[in-house]
Amino acid sequence: MTFDDFMQDAVKRDAADPLAWTRAMFRIPDHLVYLDGNSLGALPEAALSKMQDRMAREWGRDLIASWNTAQWFTKPMTVGDRIARLIGAAPGQVAVTDSTSINLFKVLYAALSLRPGRRKIVSEDGNFPSDLYMAQGMRQMFPDLEIVQAKTPSQIEQALDGDTAVLTLTEVDFRTGRLHDMRSLTDKAHAAGALVIWDLAHSAGAIPVDLDGCNVDFAVGCTYKYLNAGPGGPAFLYVAERHQEAASQPLTGWIGHADPFAMSSAYVPATGIRKFLTGTPSILAFAPLEASLDIWEKADMATVRAKSLALADLFIAMVDALPKSYGLSLASPREGAHRGSQVSFRHPHAYRIMKALIADGVIGDFRAPDITRFGLTPLTLRYADIVEAVRRFDAIMREDRWRAFPDERGSAVT
Amino acid sequence: MTFDDFMQDAVKRDAADPLAWTRAMFRIPDHLVYLDGNSLGALPEAALSKMQDRMAREWGRDLIASWNTAQWFTKPMTVGDRIARLIGAAPGQVAVTDSTSINLFKVLYAALSLRPGRRKIVSEDGNFPSDLYMAQGMRQMFPDLEIVQAKTPSQIEQALDGDTAVLTLTEVDFRTGRLHDMRSLTDKAHAAGALVIWDLAHSAGAIPVDLDGCNVDFAVGCTYKYLNAGPGGPAFLYVAERHQEAASQPLTGWIGHADPFAMSSAYVPATGIRKFLTGTPSILAFAPLEASLDIWEKADMATVRAKSLALADLFIAMVDALPKSYGLSLASPREGAHRGSQVSFRHPHAYRIMKALIADGVIGDFRAPDITRFGLTPLTLRYADIVEAVRRFDAIMREDRWRAFPDERGSAVT
Repeated sequence: MTFDDFMQDAVKRDAADPLAWTRAMFRIPDHLVYLDGNSLGALPEAALSKMQDRMAREWGRDLIASWNTAQWFTKPMTVGDRIARLIGAAPGQVAVTDSTSINLFKVLYAALSLRPGRRKIVSEDGNFPSDLYMAQGMRQMFPDLEIVQAKTPSQIEQALDGDTAVLTLTEVDFRTGRLHDMRSLTDKAHAAGALVIWDLAHSAGAIPVDLDGCNVDFAVGCTYKYLNAGPGGPAFLYVAERHQEAASQPLTGWIGHADPFAMSSAYVPATGIRKFLTGTPSILAFAPLEASLDIWEKADMATVRAKSLALADLFIAMVDALPKSYGLSLASPREGAHRGSQVSFRHPHAYRIMKALIADGVIGDFRAPDITRFGLTPLTLRYADIVEAVRRFDAIMREDRWRAFPDERGSAVT
Repeated sequence: MTFDDFMQDAVKRDAADPLAWTRAMFRIPDHLVYLDGNSLGALPEAALSKMQDRMAREWGRDLIASWNTAQWFTKPMTVGDRIARLIGAAPGQVAVTDSTSINLFKVLYAALSLRPGRRKIVSEDGNFPSDLYMAQGMRQMFPDLEIVQAKTPSQIEQALDGDTAVLTLTEVDFRTGRLHDMRSLTDKAHAAGALVIWDLAHSAGAIPVDLDGCNVDFAVGCTYKYLNAGPGGPAFLYVAERHQEAASQPLTGWIGHADPFAMSSAYVPATGIRKFLTGTPSILAFAPLEASLDIWEKADMATVRAKSLALADLFIAMVDALPKSYGLSLASPREGAHRGSQVSFRHPHAYRIMKALIADGVIGDFRAPDITRFGLTPLTLRYADIVEAVRRFDAIMREDRWRAFPDERGSAVT
């Protein structure tokens, strides 16, 4: 098939796409093929007016009264319940608050405290660096703590034993897109008497998640990737209802107090998920998330997943069809069932190739040492975008255009 | 003097006010006398366009590239340096990040770790409840920790001894406006070998602060009160340069890593103030703060302080002049040198009185058990506003209008 053949087919699929309506809900610069929505999701158009209203009316006009009249105080819980629906959680178990890393601290601490006498955290070396760093920071508080950073999936399972307090993993590998089996690993951790924490940074809005169904204990996640809440948008945490009474966390601020407005001088934890809140929430930062969830709530997650897999399969098939794939090798699982919502390819010159792609308007990102990564966001991408991306990719490789870009490792954001 | 006399005089003072230009920079609803800027500061008009630009251009158009091109990554430090100038700190010692409570956790932990063997935190019972709660949460990690919540200033000094690791106080009492002597208390803590943490929530943008000059060790503060950054705006922390190398904190996320973009799997703390950062910063929430700082940087802090004291003195004089002050007694220090930027009055029916004032467009707040509190924000208030506020206050008291409001204790925010 030629590029024109691929494009003709893609245009037909786009016309029949049940999610075709969503792209117009977001701002996508015309000249870009934006394949970095797993790093920073696109701007929902309605986020602009939602923010304007929050600032001009709720803050500017109604001022302090908005804590009550605009339900600011309950936002961490009400917006949490909206995210809960996207990740298979019943209401009352998700709160939107702080950053992913701080939320991981809270649930790691809670999990360790629920398993006194056990001194091991099991994770994997390929986990988000920040997740590993947060676990490592725990050693300041739990001096006997051992942190296992497994190198392979089988090492993860081998490490689960009677000394393991908690297994903490990111469901989708941020480099390769490899999808862990949440149900199986959760069961294995439980069989060893350990608790589990899943990081959903590359899951929420990317793939169907069933936290309650998998009997997960704790989870954290961010909203600025697939959930389109904007740079540094508020993160979330999940605490299964069965743990909420016994679990405690040490960031005991006023918003997590049983009676925040009594302003007593002794901390008494709230019941329920509110116990996991700390300081005053960033009310403005909630606005784009709420605008995004208005769209997400109209998109069926199974439909999103089906399109995500189809976009990835198309991308992979087209790269397969390039002459010897120009030395690119698929880093992501070929089988959709084991893959999140991205495709990654390895190449010794991945860094320079990504620079060339970005210069040509195909925005993905480089992940050390040798990965070009492309996020697939079915609400904002068309099949035609994939064809266009690979068309430009082909030209860059065929003409060796990436050689014009020096290997000066710059900055990037997970 | 009659109200008309007071008003005539106020109008003259407003005309001569060197800060008269600032009010138009903020959105203040016409019908309100807003005396709650110490709970939620007014909206800077320019914050709307700053946010629009951040969302539409930096996020919506430039997307992920903005982490570099719009200097998102360095915002916690660059905006921190702008706040530093308002609180007497040299550059490189202030970072804008997270919430005040989480920042307090970081510096409390750092201070305790710098004083091993000492097992006492000294604070006071009238401190912000959330600050006390965060200190109490520390007991989960330091089981021997003793927390002294002094009832009087002299009890604070008596409690400072060789077992004291840290003295943590809020400079301005949120109920009464009483101003601690930062220099003297810091010296006394140091004489006992302890470190100090000052909470500047009611100081930053309210009064001149000289952290470096007072040899302060650590400080935290919020930006949504006097600094007009909007509800739940990002908070800040200060770590004196002399402590930055030895101090450590356990919320060791990727933004505080020595080389965040290497994405190595082992945490190595950054040098300098960046070590105190944790997760991805809320870039959108910085926009209103930056718009506000554009104004603050043109306002001389000594001029702000002089006007703040004059507004308070006028308020106090006018209440003094009411018939027997209607039973209102001044809860704030009468002498300006001992007072922050607010005035508070006690009354047995304070809750109902504040409800009546709010219904009449005079927005202050109630603080249990018996305080009506009025924040004075010289950038947004005119002398005429004070006269108008007391005029309405007088009518409510004279006509017993507050009796129409039942004593149903509602919610409020510090």
